[in-house]
Amino acid sequence: MNNFNYSIPTKVYFGKGKIKKLGEIAKAYGEKALLVYGGGSIKSNGIYDAAVEKLKEAGVQYVELSGVEPNPRITSVEAGVKLCRENKVDMIIPIGGGSTIDCAKAIAAAAYYEGNPWDIVQDCSKITKALPIISILTLAATGSEMDAFAVISNMERNEKLGMGHDLLKPQASILDPEYTFTVSKYQTAAGTADIMSHIFEAYFTTDEGAYLPDRMAEAMLKTCIKYGPIAMENPENYEARANLMWTSSLAINGLISFGKTGEWSVHGMEHELSAFYDITHGVGLAILTPHWMRYVLNDNTLNKFVEYGINVWDIDKSLDKKEIANFAIDKTAEFFKKMGIPTTLREVGINEEKLEVMAQQAVRFGMEDCFVPLTAEDVLNIFKDAL
Amino acid sequence: MNNFNYSIPTKVYFGKGKIKKLGEIAKAYGEKALLVYGGGSIKSNGIYDAAVEKLKEAGVQYVELSGVEPNPRITSVEAGVKLCRENKVDMIIPIGGGSTIDCAKAIAAAAYYEGNPWDIVQDCSKITKALPIISILTLAATGSEMDAFAVISNMERNEKLGMGHDLLKPQASILDPEYTFTVSKYQTAAGTADIMSHIFEAYFTTDEGAYLPDRMAEAMLKTCIKYGPIAMENPENYEARANLMWTSSLAINGLISFGKTGEWSVHGMEHELSAFYDITHGVGLAILTPHWMRYVLNDNTLNKFVEYGINVWDIDKSLDKKEIANFAIDKTAEFFKKMGIPTTLREVGINEEKLEVMAQQAVRFGMEDCFVPLTAEDVLNIFKDAL
Repeated sequence: MNNFNYSIPTKVYFGKGKIKKLGEIAKAYGEKALLVYGGGSIKSNGIYDAAVEKLKEAGVQYVELSGVEPNPRITSVEAGVKLCRENKVDMIIPIGGGSTIDCAKAIAAAAYYEGNPWDIVQDCSKITKALPIISILTLAATGSEMDAFAVISNMERNEKLGMGHDLLKPQASILDPEYTFTVSKYQTAAGTADIMSHIFEAYFTTDEGAYLPDRMAEAMLKTCIKYGPIAMENPENYEARANLMWTSSLAINGLISFGKTGEWSVHGMEHELSAFYDITHGVGLAILTPHWMRYVLNDNTLNKFVEYGINVWDIDKSLDKKEIANFAIDKTAEFFKKMGIPTTLREVGINEEKLEVMAQQAVRFGMEDCFVPLTAEDVLNIFKDAL
Repeated sequence: MNNFNYSIPTKVYFGKGKIKKLGEIAKAYGEKALLVYGGGSIKSNGIYDAAVEKLKEAGVQYVELSGVEPNPRITSVEAGVKLCRENKVDMIIPIGGGSTIDCAKAIAAAAYYEGNPWDIVQDCSKITKALPIISILTLAATGSEMDAFAVISNMERNEKLGMGHDLLKPQASILDPEYTFTVSKYQTAAGTADIMSHIFEAYFTTDEGAYLPDRMAEAMLKTCIKYGPIAMENPENYEARANLMWTSSLAINGLISFGKTGEWSVHGMEHELSAFYDITHGVGLAILTPHWMRYVLNDNTLNKFVEYGINVWDIDKSLDKKEIANFAIDKTAEFFKKMGIPTTLREVGINEEKLEVMAQQAVRFGMEDCFVPLTAEDVLNIFKDAL
């Protein structure tokens, strides 16, 4: 187990009706908030009304930034920064999924940055201060509600970059599984794939001896495999929504990566797909993951896949190792298919045209420290396999 | 999954050499510390020297309370409070295992309490403020390094009481697995049993639908089962010590009990054994646990034991359910025996004499909300089974 520093300061208010805590939580951070949200579904399902009622009761004023995109753009961040400055807000309250929370995080830091907000996306070391964030989650997927990361797109530059800083961790997050009852089948599937991909990125590393984190990662994968399909079939199954929601938060808040090392693989590749084609992140991940797995399966990585197959998919341990590994990858692909996620890039409108440039982009920050180091050529091969 | 509020504010500095962070951490809390430690083994193994060197480098002064007992007593707490007040200390730095950290927690709260320190042990709602705690852990067992709890004994009253308050959570903990290399075989076994017992208390509840917490609990149990014996055989096996140490912290910081309910069972019983006989807590737990399991196994609890048997002990799921459950309990008892822990109360000097009074004491705060509700008679039966 590698050395690590653990700090997960976000307070989580989990369960039905927890929105009632919002006024008390917000009041502790000041008098005025910036509400950040997306396309307005929170207005039709009552979440918006519930939130503003609690803010009003507590005497917390608010201004609003709506229309945040599914892959949040730097233009929305700029608009949010303007609102923060003009209204001297004390905190940001994103209501939505990861995109909304990510946008809020970038705004929170950029509000204190004099230059162009894209600068701090490109170089997080420029972040020195950030407004506090109180997130209200409506989609189990990115884990942004409890982590230090945000992903922001710059469509002019065809760039989608991840940023990370301790100051971006939300101060508090309200997680009411009922708020995800209205999430569509498709988004439930994509969200589950996103959670699983976060777990895979932490799980598939070359570290030895990080036994506990890996067993916890398997616990989380099993949770996704059990409850993803249930939530799709029965969107108001509280147990399923609750387990998925809590897994989304724990999958990426550090818990299963403390003690481990290694760069992520599939997220870096997928970010290019959605930067160039604006596809749903979780769908891109689900398409690429089985192909990436087959590509990186070799004599050195065999044991990890065997562990994955036996512990997560309950594959008979008496089988031949290679058989177990391949069977585990088959199971992974079948699971995503069963969830109704497209299985090829062509199905989401991606053809050969930009594969090379996307592959080049994907490795520009290096993929040498991944589970299996990847070059642009490797990424291109994986893209082609996934076509 | 039940509603819960999650807050784990302790920062953890995990890994070899992390003591080097102590000066920087302490400096943030003030100028003067109370060092708290036990019998002095930290002086022979170099941990004391390393700690004071870092404090001196950072210009943090310190006074000392040594000789804290394995079951820390209220008299030590009183001595610590006196030192805090006389020296106006800004923080408390316990160096040791759970007993030392528990003692530091009680001191931290009692330093701000005007009355008798035993009052706040008996009634934690009287705690309004506490000195910050920076713990340096030398034994993987109680999880006190990351939780809100402390257990304090009052030998005059034959009482051993648990206290819990958010203000008692350490601000920071330094967890260097190498600091546990010198822990004896016996204490390693007892510590592992203590960790496992914390996990059992969270795991064996009647809640349904808390799937993720239960799978994580199983991950932790497997870690103890794998590494407990390795650490005993090879005390300097870093991987084993690291996995046990991190499990000790996560087992009781809330992670596997958030979303669940229910009172603890075995801890309440064991506290009476060590209050009356001053035996090693983990040993008492290991003796009682299999007997408690057999006592509470019934048609209602069967499925939980089946889950435990299959997921933790890898028992063939095609067997009859009762067979699986009993086999799982056998495996648990065998494991503790293999670890060299006594299997009967007589072996640790406990006879019939005080069983009844201990049973009465054990249920005085109620055991109606346990996995299986227990009366004084039930506890007495379990004690007799364990004789």
